[in-house]
Amino acid sequence: MERTQKKPVAPTHSDDTLVWGKNPVTELLKSGTGVDTLLVADNMAPQTAGYFTALGRQAGAVVKRVPAGKLQKLTGTADHQGVVAWAARIEYATLEDLLDAAAQKGEPPFLILCDGVEDPHNLGAILRSALLCGAHGVIIPRRGGTAVTGTVMKASAGAAARIPVARVANLAQAVRTLKEHNVFVYCADMGGQPLSRTDLSGAVALVLGNEGAGVSALVRKLCDGVVSLEMAAPGTGVDSYNVSVAAGILMYDVLQRRRASHP
Amino acid sequence: MERTQKKPVAPTHSDDTLVWGKNPVTELLKSGTGVDTLLVADNMAPQTAGYFTALGRQAGAVVKRVPAGKLQKLTGTADHQGVVAWAARIEYATLEDLLDAAAQKGEPPFLILCDGVEDPHNLGAILRSALLCGAHGVIIPRRGGTAVTGTVMKASAGAAARIPVARVANLAQAVRTLKEHNVFVYCADMGGQPLSRTDLSGAVALVLGNEGAGVSALVRKLCDGVVSLEMAAPGTGVDSYNVSVAAGILMYDVLQRRRASHP
Repeated sequence: MERTQKKPVAPTHSDDTLVWGKNPVTELLKSGTGVDTLLVADNMAPQTAGYFTALGRQAGAVVKRVPAGKLQKLTGTADHQGVVAWAARIEYATLEDLLDAAAQKGEPPFLILCDGVEDPHNLGAILRSALLCGAHGVIIPRRGGTAVTGTVMKASAGAAARIPVARVANLAQAVRTLKEHNVFVYCADMGGQPLSRTDLSGAVALVLGNEGAGVSALVRKLCDGVVSLEMAAPGTGVDSYNVSVAAGILMYDVLQRRRASHP
Repeated sequence: MERTQKKPVAPTHSDDTLVWGKNPVTELLKSGTGVDTLLVADNMAPQTAGYFTALGRQAGAVVKRVPAGKLQKLTGTADHQGVVAWAARIEYATLEDLLDAAAQKGEPPFLILCDGVEDPHNLGAILRSALLCGAHGVIIPRRGGTAVTGTVMKASAGAAARIPVARVANLAQAVRTLKEHNVFVYCADMGGQPLSRTDLSGAVALVLGNEGAGVSALVRKLCDGVVSLEMAAPGTGVDSYNVSVAAGILMYDVLQRRRASHP
């Protein structure tokens, strides 16, 4: 047994924390903390491997089967029990923190809700646009959609460390809370009012949906309005923008309105 | 030698064509046709492997070292000589085709030039937005930046098959040609005129740069103008939008102007 390598070797995950062993990894995956990658030994019993794979996917992690020897090299021990996870090191905020941040700046709240955005490149780009457009924070659900993983942080070009992200147990409840705070909540989806005829000024939240399924029916129903992006070419078989592009167009519109009212 | 598997097995690359052998792969990589993935056998001599790796990267392909046995399985033959490439099956247009497309629609040209966009997710999202915003085509360089690979096609959500893409030997020359056709060429980069004070109506082309380095100095110099996106939060260390998001915001602005003049 090679024991010379004591420290975890993870050059491509330098921002993250390495966790191993069945119980620690299970706890981590269930905690709602961001997990970037889950490595499962290829000699693990199928049922156990299936359990961890499912748990990892639910937590928004990339799951990979690798030789057990690789896990030993990574962790510097043979006690990894066949599972290793890279935990992303982001500290999540609460919904109240986000509203407070707006109040402290003396600005009407401007928030983004991601209802099941799965692709880490998309969430990263959304965080980046949110920061640049002056949003006070981004809200993501604890389950369904990617967490702020290492890949998200990388895709955000550093924005993930600068814009508060709240991870909530119940996105529908978050919409209700925002409405109680007089924030006008818009669902970005097809079949709504065109952006050019929508006034996104004032206290506003934008809900973005899953890449395939869009915004969930319950959340859409709770929203105050639905805003849709115009298209030049209907009937081409392509009927929606990439979610991070759509988010960027909408957020940029909000930024323009805010700059116009406070130049 | 296992010979039962005669057909290439490439479930994740069903849109692509498999090419193998040193000469065919070299030709393919040098042809300027899109190559999605290049597989190099792990037992190939380091110098040869290095040659193919460099050539593959230059062609915008993802390069992977894999066991020689995998190549045999994929190609169904032992004659793969250690290199296998998936060629993307897109047919490129010419710059003239793109201008013709605009003329046939009776519209002033609206074109997008990608000056070294490397991430296939970004190029895919750009193609998708270009189609939806009514652009007549996208121009990419033969070298530098990703080609329209399988990953790009997937990320474009089908748009890659619907919007003409011209792959040109010289992007600077393409800019010159567009200017000769009275197309106003805007470089999207920092330090330009804010979008809110820029009139993107009429015959227009937008040049988007590399994710890291932006638009190359020569191309930028040739452009008629530079347009920049506004930001709410200067000094956060994040100083640009994701290139596909920036492209989307700019293209959507062009779409709005065209809809306003031809409602």
